[in-house]
Amino acid sequence: MPELNRRLVLARRPHGMVDHEIVRLESSERPEPELGEALVKVTHLSIDPTIRTWMNDAVSYLPPIAIGAVIRSGGIGEVVESRSSRYQVGDVVFGMPGWQECAIADESDRPMRKLPEALDPPTALNVFGINGMTAYFGLLDVGRLQEGDCVVVSGAAGATGSTAGQLARLKGASQVVGIAGGPEKCAYVVGELGFDAAVDYKGPGLAARLHELCPSGIDLYFDNVGGIILDTALAQLAMRGRVVLCGAISAYNATEIPPGPSNYVNLIARRGRMEGFIVSDYARRFPEAQAEVLSFLQDGRLKHAEHVVEGLEQAPDALNLLFTGGNTGKVVVRL
Amino acid sequence: MPELNRRLVLARRPHGMVDHEIVRLESSERPEPELGEALVKVTHLSIDPTIRTWMNDAVSYLPPIAIGAVIRSGGIGEVVESRSSRYQVGDVVFGMPGWQECAIADESDRPMRKLPEALDPPTALNVFGINGMTAYFGLLDVGRLQEGDCVVVSGAAGATGSTAGQLARLKGASQVVGIAGGPEKCAYVVGELGFDAAVDYKGPGLAARLHELCPSGIDLYFDNVGGIILDTALAQLAMRGRVVLCGAISAYNATEIPPGPSNYVNLIARRGRMEGFIVSDYARRFPEAQAEVLSFLQDGRLKHAEHVVEGLEQAPDALNLLFTGGNTGKVVVRL
Repeated sequence: MPELNRRLVLARRPHGMVDHEIVRLESSERPEPELGEALVKVTHLSIDPTIRTWMNDAVSYLPPIAIGAVIRSGGIGEVVESRSSRYQVGDVVFGMPGWQECAIADESDRPMRKLPEALDPPTALNVFGINGMTAYFGLLDVGRLQEGDCVVVSGAAGATGSTAGQLARLKGASQVVGIAGGPEKCAYVVGELGFDAAVDYKGPGLAARLHELCPSGIDLYFDNVGGIILDTALAQLAMRGRVVLCGAISAYNATEIPPGPSNYVNLIARRGRMEGFIVSDYARRFPEAQAEVLSFLQDGRLKHAEHVVEGLEQAPDALNLLFTGGNTGKVVVRL
Repeated sequence: MPELNRRLVLARRPHGMVDHEIVRLESSERPEPELGEALVKVTHLSIDPTIRTWMNDAVSYLPPIAIGAVIRSGGIGEVVESRSSRYQVGDVVFGMPGWQECAIADESDRPMRKLPEALDPPTALNVFGINGMTAYFGLLDVGRLQEGDCVVVSGAAGATGSTAGQLARLKGASQVVGIAGGPEKCAYVVGELGFDAAVDYKGPGLAARLHELCPSGIDLYFDNVGGIILDTALAQLAMRGRVVLCGAISAYNATEIPPGPSNYVNLIARRGRMEGFIVSDYARRFPEAQAEVLSFLQDGRLKHAEHVVEGLEQAPDALNLLFTGGNTGKVVVRL
């Protein structure tokens, strides 16, 4: 272990996309574990759109990242020193280490947890981690997927969307349509992930294509993006259709307040429901979901892809990939 | 009974508010009841915002009113001739007679039903009819009102809003705040209806006033209006807050697509739910709700007001009152 801990801290609040003036690399002394703690050498970071929202000075489901603080982030590392019976040297653990090389694992309510040996870290951060859990509980619990549902998923080539669509297929949806940016991602969503169809939102005729693919309307729309895509889906809700609000990446870097979905009024005539959630509320039920997801992974029924970026200092650019659409699958930074 | 049936028909689709060129008075032959039918002399019409939406050439929860057809509307009348054992001459019945002097009651799935003798027709159309039922099921079933909830109701001086707020009070809300237009309506909502507070949306500082009155956020927002008021309430939702979408009168006469609620994203962080409904879906449960509402009426715990307009030909202007805010309470046309 190096004597110094390289880490990325929030230098100032972003306005639009982040860069190296917003997120600054600095070195501090390596933290020393106290009694009940362990020192973790961080090996992988989970790059998620929500990190961008934590950088704003706004009340959300977590407090904003303070100026000068390490960027909050999920990740995986190896225990290199332990003063806790919970952690053994050599354990590979996942949790919220932040964008830094060395983190402290503790015995609090949110400790770092040992990774199942069957999973490599990028896969774990993707399907087994926050993205997989978000897809699972969003689809089944918030969206109450029913057999025969016509399901539409935006951000379908992304980590959460790709798992949501595949789970919908595995759980009896009659039609699973992905919305993604560009023909390559659309081909991936259908060819690799087994969605029934994909629509390129960058091409013309999103509304018409959705109508062709879901002629009786959309029973469940899993929304990762917000904006015009959400508005288009709302216009085509089926009776008692459900909109699961998972994220709104189209708005996360907006420098002006983006317009809201005018077609929300359609929720009245269609008796529709639009509901948001935060996956950490389901933490107690993660083990049941992870067991099921793991079985789908192990028998090959759940496909996944990771986009691995090398080097801690690349984390801000890796985050931006999520908003420019530069990734397919889960973005992971390997240290 | 006159030989002719005066009636108001849809002459052409409206663009904005309706007038006598959109809704035309004409006379036709009086309908003759066939076997299984009764002739009803219409005495009162229920003037509801949703009538305006039925005039558009747009798919909604009911088909549009056809050009040349009588304006669809709830109402009350007296049976003057019967060829059905279901209807006796002299019965006062309510249902959907339309904007006309003479209507046919039949034995279909949606017959006209006999009015309880305890109720005068305007009160029946208000609290016992569609408005009362909308308030009841919207608040309790869609909104799942819980004891201790902080409840905000827009259109609070209107027929549905005034009942929704009073029912929230009767059912254990900790705080009931009405939003209404102008100081007189606000005084009525607090002084007569017993809301805890009212906010004048025409005055300044709606957001600040709501925040003062609901410092821990809004648990249940019953929305009749849409627009900026909905957006303001969404920004102040409490954790697991619910938005009941009953109507969107701010948009019904819009000639351009009004902006949607940007703050819908707050549903994510607050784990909120926004859900629409159509009260006719609850028709089978109306008797239970009506029994309860009737008991509240009879022991004086539920206040109501009707704004009665005289004459069939005034029905279009009566409808416009709902959008200009010219009414307090239920708008009824007496023929």
